[in-house]
Amino acid sequence: MPGNSIGQRLVLTSFGESHGKAIGTILDGCPAGLEIDDKDIQKMLDYRKPGTSLITTQRKEGDKVEIISGVFRGHTTGAPITMVIWNSDQKSRDYENLKTKLRPGHSDYPAMIKYNHFNDYRGGGRFSGRLTATHVMGGAIARKLLKVTLGIETNSFTTQVGKIEMKKEINKKMIKTIYQNDVRCPDDKTAEKMKIEILKARKKGDSLGGVIESITTNVPVGLGEPIFGSLESDLSKAIFSIPSVKGIEFGSGFEGSKLFGSENNDLYTINKGKIITKTNNSGGILGGISNGMPITLRIAFKPASSISQKQSTVDIKTKKVTNLEVQGRHDPCVVPRAPPVVDSLVALTLADHALMAGKIKPVL
Amino acid sequence: MPGNSIGQRLVLTSFGESHGKAIGTILDGCPAGLEIDDKDIQKMLDYRKPGTSLITTQRKEGDKVEIISGVFRGHTTGAPITMVIWNSDQKSRDYENLKTKLRPGHSDYPAMIKYNHFNDYRGGGRFSGRLTATHVMGGAIARKLLKVTLGIETNSFTTQVGKIEMKKEINKKMIKTIYQNDVRCPDDKTAEKMKIEILKARKKGDSLGGVIESITTNVPVGLGEPIFGSLESDLSKAIFSIPSVKGIEFGSGFEGSKLFGSENNDLYTINKGKIITKTNNSGGILGGISNGMPITLRIAFKPASSISQKQSTVDIKTKKVTNLEVQGRHDPCVVPRAPPVVDSLVALTLADHALMAGKIKPVL
Amino acid sequence: MPGNSIGQRLVLTSFGESHGKAIGTILDGCPAGLEIDDKDIQKMLDYRKPGTSLITTQRKEGDKVEIISGVFRGHTTGAPITMVIWNSDQKSRDYENLKTKLRPGHSDYPAMIKYNHFNDYRGGGRFSGRLTATHVMGGAIARKLLKVTLGIETNSFTTQVGKIEMKKEINKKMIKTIYQNDVRCPDDKTAEKMKIEILKARKKGDSLGGVIESITTNVPVGLGEPIFGSLESDLSKAIFSIPSVKGIEFGSGFEGSKLFGSENNDLYTINKGKIITKTNNSGGILGGISNGMPITLRIAFKPASSISQKQSTVDIKTKKVTNLEVQGRHDPCVVPRAPPVVDSLVALTLADHALMAGKIKPVL
Amino acid sequence: MPGNSIGQRLVLTSFGESHGKAIGTILDGCPAGLEIDDKDIQKMLDYRKPGTSLITTQRKEGDKVEIISGVFRGHTTGAPITMVIWNSDQKSRDYENLKTKLRPGHSDYPAMIKYNHFNDYRGGGRFSGRLTATHVMGGAIARKLLKVTLGIETNSFTTQVGKIEMKKEINKKMIKTIYQNDVRCPDDKTAEKMKIEILKARKKGDSLGGVIESITTNVPVGLGEPIFGSLESDLSKAIFSIPSVKGIEFGSGFEGSKLFGSENNDLYTINKGKIITKTNNSGGILGGISNGMPITLRIAFKPASSISQKQSTVDIKTKKVTNLEVQGRHDPCVVPRAPPVVDSLVALTLADHALMAGKIKPVL
Repeated sequence: MPGNSIGQRLVLTSFGESHGKAIGTILDGCPAGLEIDDKDIQKMLDYRKPGTSLITTQRKEGDKVEIISGVFRGHTTGAPITMVIWNSDQKSRDYENLKTKLRPGHSDYPAMIKYNHFNDYRGGGRFSGRLTATHVMGGAIARKLLKVTLGIETNSFTTQVGKIEMKKEINKKMIKTIYQNDVRCPDDKTAEKMKIEILKARKKGDSLGGVIESITTNVPVGLGEPIFGSLESDLSKAIFSIPSVKGIEFGSGFEGSKLFGSENNDLYTINKGKIITKTNNSGGILGGISNGMPITLRIAFKPASSISQKQSTVDIKTKKVTNLEVQGRHDPCVVPRAPPVVDSLVALTLADHALMAGKIKPVL
Repeated sequence: MPGNSIGQRLVLTSFGESHGKAIGTILDGCPAGLEIDDKDIQKMLDYRKPGTSLITTQRKEGDKVEIISGVFRGHTTGAPITMVIWNSDQKSRDYENLKTKLRPGHSDYPAMIKYNHFNDYRGGGRFSGRLTATHVMGGAIARKLLKVTLGIETNSFTTQVGKIEMKKEINKKMIKTIYQNDVRCPDDKTAEKMKIEILKARKKGDSLGGVIESITTNVPVGLGEPIFGSLESDLSKAIFSIPSVKGIEFGSGFEGSKLFGSENNDLYTINKGKIITKTNNSGGILGGISNGMPITLRIAFKPASSISQKQSTVDIKTKKVTNLEVQGRHDPCVVPRAPPVVDSLVALTLADHALMAGKIKPVL
Repeated sequence: MPGNSIGQRLVLTSFGESHGKAIGTILDGCPAGLEIDDKDIQKMLDYRKPGTSLITTQRKEGDKVEIISGVFRGHTTGAPITMVIWNSDQKSRDYENLKTKLRPGHSDYPAMIKYNHFNDYRGGGRFSGRLTATHVMGGAIARKLLKVTLGIETNSFTTQVGKIEMKKEINKKMIKTIYQNDVRCPDDKTAEKMKIEILKARKKGDSLGGVIESITTNVPVGLGEPIFGSLESDLSKAIFSIPSVKGIEFGSGFEGSKLFGSENNDLYTINKGKIITKTNNSGGILGGISNGMPITLRIAFKPASSISQKQSTVDIKTKKVTNLEVQGRHDPCVVPRAPPVVDSLVALTLADHALMAGKIKPVL
Repeated sequence: MPGNSIGQRLVLTSFGESHGKAIGTILDGCPAGLEIDDKDIQKMLDYRKPGTSLITTQRKEGDKVEIISGVFRGHTTGAPITMVIWNSDQKSRDYENLKTKLRPGHSDYPAMIKYNHFNDYRGGGRFSGRLTATHVMGGAIARKLLKVTLGIETNSFTTQVGKIEMKKEINKKMIKTIYQNDVRCPDDKTAEKMKIEILKARKKGDSLGGVIESITTNVPVGLGEPIFGSLESDLSKAIFSIPSVKGIEFGSGFEGSKLFGSENNDLYTINKGKIITKTNNSGGILGGISNGMPITLRIAFKPASSISQKQSTVDIKTKKVTNLEVQGRHDPCVVPRAPPVVDSLVALTLADHALMAGKIKPVL
C-alpha cells in the first residue's frame, strides 16, 4: 500500500492537494450500521479550521465536508465512505515564485527530487498541513465508533507552546474546557500566556512549536498486537503523518528513561474488583498491548517552517545561494489546530485495533 | 498482516518464544544476488548477546544463527531467507511461580487477558526482549544490502544511562569505537560512569533505562512516501517493536519544540556542488522524505521491568494484592544491548523504502 | 485492506454505489510523469457504456470522468489520482419494491444478511455491475503506463455468446476491429450471429452469458512472484471482481487438462536470437511467471441475472415463497460491455507486477 | 507482501526449496486456544505424500511435520505457528545437467531470467510442486479451525484424469470414500479406469492432467468482501498458487456461460424455515459473498511437465536448440496428490474470511 493509506481493517486513504480541486478521504472498513451526521464530522473539522483568531493563519478555508458514498439513510452501509472538501481559497500565485527557491524546513526540496519536479508544489501540494483535514474527516467517524461501541474517549490538548508549559495535570473537568480558548490548553492561565507568546512571534514574523498531549480513557485490556503491531508502533506511525511532528513519547517517556525500575514500574492493585495500576508510567500500554489504564502520549511539534523573515536558501535551478521571503498567510503556531488531528489519528488506530481484536464487530 | 511482520517489499516476519524450541526470522523480498556470510549475521547477534559482562544478564544465550532457506552458493536467491536460533538455556521453572502473579511493567497481564491464558508465559514468551534477536538476524542482511548497494551506514550507540548523559556530539572517529566498551557509549569517560551506575543499580536489585542515539549517513534524497508512509512513521513503527522503548524523536525533537522557527529551520547552502543544510534539526527528514542529510533519532528506553526487589502486585487467580520477588537472571539495564537492534530496525526500514523508491533493484 | 482495493504498488480503490451520488476510483502508486489526457480514460469508459445499441441496457449513463486529484499540468504527480463519475440517471423507485423480494442470481440476499440490512440495495448498490466503470478509470491509466513504458498491449474481445462461438483464432489485424461491432467480436460473421442471439433473448425477456478472451503482447520475461503472487493468482483475483464472472483459464486451460504432457508442453526454440516457445499452451505463464509469450486467458460470464420473466423467489420479510418480476432496463447480455473492463484489470495487475519487478520505475 | 505469503488476518507464509535444508510454513493469526495435535497435520501431509503407489513418483519424501513455535501445552497461543519438514531424499545431481537446458513446461526459464541465475534451480527450487506441502501444514490447521468453530467441511476429489471423467455427482456417502483409492476419486469404477490410464502414460514416459472438484458445506451466509475481496477472487488467488493449475470455475462455470438466465438463475425457496436455492449454479457465491449453499469449484490441472520422453529445447548458455531427457522420478499425474492441497487452500481462504467477517473470534 502506498503511503496515502493507513490501517488494516479500518483503512483511511487520503487524497488531494492543497491547491487542487479538492482534498478528501475514503474510510473503508467502517462497520455497517453506525449513525452518521455530517455535523459530527463538521464539528471536528471546525475545531481544526484556521482563521478563527489572530493566532492562526488568516486564510479562509471553508472546509465543508461532503459525503459522497458509503452512507445511506443516515447510517454507514459497510461500503467505503468517501468524503470531500472542495478547495476554494487558493492563491496559487503566492507560491509561484517559490517554484525554484527551496523553503527551509519544508518538503519542497526532497519532494522535487523524489518526483522529478512532477509534483504539485503549490502550497506544499500533497505535503501541506492542510491535508490533515482528511485525517479529521475519517477520524471523526472512528472517534464516534469507539464512543458508541466501547465508550472509549480520546481527547488531546495543548500542553506546551514554545517555552510556555502547562504544569497542571489534566483531569475530567479540564477536558471539557479544551476548546474554550484558542490555544486549546485546558488551563486558562497558561493558555493566556501561550496566546501572548504566539502573538509576539507573529509580530516578529517568526513561529513557535509546542507539545500536544493526548489521553484516551475506557480502553479495554488487550488491544494491540505482538511485536511490530504494538499499539505504540501503530499510534506513532499514524501520528508522524502530521507534518511538523518530530517526537512522540508514551507514559513517562523520555523522563522515565532517567528513573530506576523501582520508580517507574507501575504496581498492580485492585480497585472495585478491577485490576489497575497505582501509577501510569506505562501510558496504558505494556508489551505493546493496552492494560486498561488511560493511554497517554505526548507529541513534539517543531515550530512552523513558514516564517516571514528573510532566510538564506538555495535556488534549485541556478544551484546558487539566494535569499527568500515566504509570502502568504501563515500559522505562527500550528499546535492549537492539532488537537482534533491527534484525536483523529489516535481514534483511527484504536478503532482498527478494536476491530482486529474482535472488540468491535464488522456489522453493528 | 498480523503484528509479527513488518515491511512492504522487504518483509521481516519474526517467530518463536523465549522458552520454546527456537526463535527465528523470515526475511522476504531481499534482492537476489546479495553475498551472504553467516558471520555477517553472527557478528551483529554477538553485539546483542548478553552474558559478556557483569552489566548485563548472566543467562547464557548461544544465539548461533542457522540459515535454512533462501541462500544458495553464498548468495541470496530472491526466495524467503529463513534463519533460526535454537533455544538452549531455558530455565522455565524460574517462571512457573509467576504464572498468576503479575510482574509489574511486563506484558503478563494484558497478554493473559488478550489470549485468554493460552499464551506461552514462560520468560515473557512472545513478548520477551529475547525476540529482538530475530530483528537482528534480518537487520544484519538489510544493513549489508544498504551498504553494498547505496553506501548507507547505520550506527547506534548509548547516549544516556539513567541520569548519566553523554554530552559530546558523535563524530566519524567515535563511531568506530562504539563496541570498544560494554555500554556501547563512544565517549570513554561517560561510558565508565554509566558502567558504575549500572553496577550500583544491580547491587540494589534495581534497574536503569536510558537513551540510544542512531545516525545514518549517505542516505539518498527521496526515500519516504507521503503522509502515512513518511520515514518517521515507518521508522517509529519499527523502533517501537523493541520492548522497553517508550519514546522517539527525530533531529531536534522535543527540544526543537521550544525553539523559534528562525532557530530551528535548517538553511540550505551549497557544498561542493551539492545542496545541503547548514544545521540538521530536521534529522534528515522533511515532509517525511529524506533530504540527504544524516538521519538522526533518539530513543527512550524505560528501566528494565524485571527487578529483584520485592514489589506489590496482584495475583490474577485470587484477584488479591500480594508480594512478588522476580527470580532469575536479569539485565540491570538493557540499553547497552540495544544498538544492534536499533541498527537492524533502521536498516530494515530504509532498505524497504529504498526498494519502493527504486533505489535498490529487486535483483542485484 | 478491505475488498474495495487491489494491488500492492499500484493500488486501485473503488468507491460509490449504483444509485448514490457518484462512483469513483483512487489510483495510487502511479509513477509521476505520465502524460494524462481525460480522453484516454473517457475512450475506454465509452467502450463500456451501455445504451449504444439495442443489445445492451437502455439506461442512459453519461459516465463522464472527472479527475479531482493527482494530475498537474497534464501529468501524474505521484500523488493519488482520484476520478469520479457523477451519477445522474437514477431511477431508484424501480428498485423500491425489490427491497424484500430476493432477486435470483443477484447479491441481494447475502448482502442483506452480511450487512444486516444497512447496505444500499438500490440497483445492487455496491455490488452493481456499474461499479466496473471504476475499474476502467484506473485501468485506462495502467494500460497507458504499460504501453508507454514497456510497449505492452492488452486486448480483450467476445469469443462466445450463449452457444455461439467464434472458431477463428485472433490475429493482429482482427485486434484492430474489435470495437467495429456492438458485440466486440473481431469475426464479423460470428458477431452477426451473436447479435441475433442476443436480440432473441431480449425479446423473450431472457439473458445470455458468454466468454471473453484476452491477449497481452510484449510482456517481458520475469513478471510474477513465486507461489501466492503468481501472475495467474493475481490476474484471477482481479478478474473475479467482475460480477457475473464464474470461470477463468489460462492458455490451454480446461482443454489442456485432457492432453498428454507430450502434447501440452510448449517446446523452446530460438527465433531471431530470442528464446520463444513453438506453442503457447501455457498462456505465457510458467510457474506463475511470464515467459515472454503472449498472456492469454478466457473468462466465463454467466447469463445476466436480471431477466424480465416471472421468477419464483422468497420474500425475506415474510419468509414466504412469492413471485417476482424484475422491472427496469437490463442488459440481455453483459459480455459485449466487458472487454474494456477485462483490459483494465489485466493492465492494472501487470502494471503492479512490472513496478514490483523493477521493470517500471516509480518516477518516469 | 512478497508472493510467499497469503491472507490478511490468517496469513500463511511458505519458505524453503525443494532440495534445500527444509521447507516450512508460518501460520500467523490463528486464534489462540485451538487444540493442535501433530497427527491432524501429519494425516493431511500423508494424503499428499508421493511414493505410496505406482501412479505417483517413487521419490521417498518422509514429510514429517515438526512444530517449532506457536503451540504450547497442546493449544495454539495466538503467536505465529512455525512448522518445518526437513528435507532428506535430495538427489541434486539428477538436476545438475539441467542447469542450462530449459525443461519445457517448467519455470526454469522465467525463473532464471527473473532472478538473474541466482535462484536455486535444483528440482525446481522454490517453484517445485513439493512446496505445496507447506500449504498443507497450514491448511490442516485452518481446516480444523473451520470445523471446530463453524462446522464447515471442505472436501476435494479427483473428477477427471486425462480424458476419463467421473459422471456421477458427489454425495455425502461418497465423500467418505475419497481416500479409499489411490486416485482419490470417490467413484470406484471411474477410479479404476483413471488408474489404468495413469499407468499407461507412465509406461510411455508421458504424463496426464485432470480436474479436481471441491465442495465445502455449512458455510454461513455472508463470507466474502465486496469487489476485489470476493470469495471467488480470494479462492482463485490461493488455488493458482498450485503449480500446474491452469483453470478454475465456480458452480456452473464455463458450462453456465452457455445457458439462458432463466436456466442458470438459482431460484430461492424455503426449506425447514431456512432460505435456500433450488439449484446451485452459483456454487454458493453471489456477488462474491457466500449465500449459504455449498461452495463448489472445479480446477484444471495441466499434465505434469516432467516427462521422460526426449524433448526439443534450448540451452540457455549456448542459445542453441538441443535435446533433453529429464531424468529423475516423476509423477505421471499429480492430480491424485492434489486433494489435500486444494482442501488446504480453500480452508485457509475461508478461515481468513470468517475471521474478517467476525464469524470466528481472534481468541477461542
